[in-house]
Amino acid sequence: MPFFPTSFEELIDRFASLPGIGRKSAQRLAFHVLALPEGEAEAFAETILRARRTVHTCPVCQNLTDGEICAVCADDRRDKSVICVVAEARDVASLERSREYNGVYHVLHGVLSPMSHVGPDDIRISELVKRVAGGDVHEVIMATNPDTEGDATAMYIARLLKPFDVRVTRLAYGIPVGSNLEFTDDATLVRALEGRREM
Amino acid sequence: MPFFPTSFEELIDRFASLPGIGRKSAQRLAFHVLALPEGEAEAFAETILRARRTVHTCPVCQNLTDGEICAVCADDRRDKSVICVVAEARDVASLERSREYNGVYHVLHGVLSPMSHVGPDDIRISELVKRVAGGDVHEVIMATNPDTEGDATAMYIARLLKPFDVRVTRLAYGIPVGSNLEFTDDATLVRALEGRREM
Repeated sequence: MPFFPTSFEELIDRFASLPGIGRKSAQRLAFHVLALPEGEAEAFAETILRARRTVHTCPVCQNLTDGEICAVCADDRRDKSVICVVAEARDVASLERSREYNGVYHVLHGVLSPMSHVGPDDIRISELVKRVAGGDVHEVIMATNPDTEGDATAMYIARLLKPFDVRVTRLAYGIPVGSNLEFTDDATLVRALEGRREM
Repeated sequence: MPFFPTSFEELIDRFASLPGIGRKSAQRLAFHVLALPEGEAEAFAETILRARRTVHTCPVCQNLTDGEICAVCADDRRDKSVICVVAEARDVASLERSREYNGVYHVLHGVLSPMSHVGPDDIRISELVKRVAGGDVHEVIMATNPDTEGDATAMYIARLLKPFDVRVTRLAYGIPVGSNLEFTDDATLVRALEGRREM
């Protein structure tokens, strides 16, 4: 038996369907939305609709944009000959935050995952190959996560790009800055050893 | 500098404005909403609007309802002579879940809190006094939380109801069922001792 009005139970259900939101949190969020000042809840709903209406993927790099092409691709100061390949749009935000990278991106929108039935045609790999085949690209940096699926995806794409005259690199993985050997997990230590450099 | 399209940043901001949702979670939720199947995001927005449009407080007990009066007040089998006073609508749901209580409710929508500038006129106390003054009420059970503000609110209301021919009681507070003495905090133990009963 529901203890709340139907439309309120539905609101709780909606919040509970979001990732990482349990039943109790969903209830708290629903109460919060109901108690918002006049117009605020309507603005919330409108924000959802507007984001859905205006946000799409950039035809060049597949990153999220509300313009014709994304801000990075549209920027003349960015080096179009270097492409950094990431799994998700949020990874672009992380790399941009570092203010170190001046090339452009390619967002795959996923990684290869046989377990989840995600194959090469389910992510934006062919779009990347087309960009590289178009010429003028000197380096492709694979920046997928250093886990099984991220590594496999990077390897797969590196092999696909072999026929083209392009340098394919992978982000360095090792001990994070500020960390120490004692608390570094084995897998990271293996990467750190493999990636050791001349001093 | 924002790393996402404006309308997407706005969606993140909206989610981040909800209680208990940090920046990272808000970003994850926004990505989730953007990736929802066709029509689902629209349904989410519509659910917010519908809940705001249809849900209001019951004119009798101040509980949430989308009908003329709430389901409990409308139920002929409920004992209208017993009123259980709770701070929030969610507390009604908790008590209903126990399937033990057969009276009706009164939702205060808050507790007295001088620190937060919440006085008697800011919560639904006068509506309760009117109900009791209307007669036919034999017992008022104070079920506000057993904390400073909940206790103070219960005391305040009990004093207001003194002039009327009505029994005012307070929920029993003590060691929770299934718990044990060793792990019971001092405040609860004090309550358990104060509330001890003849065997």
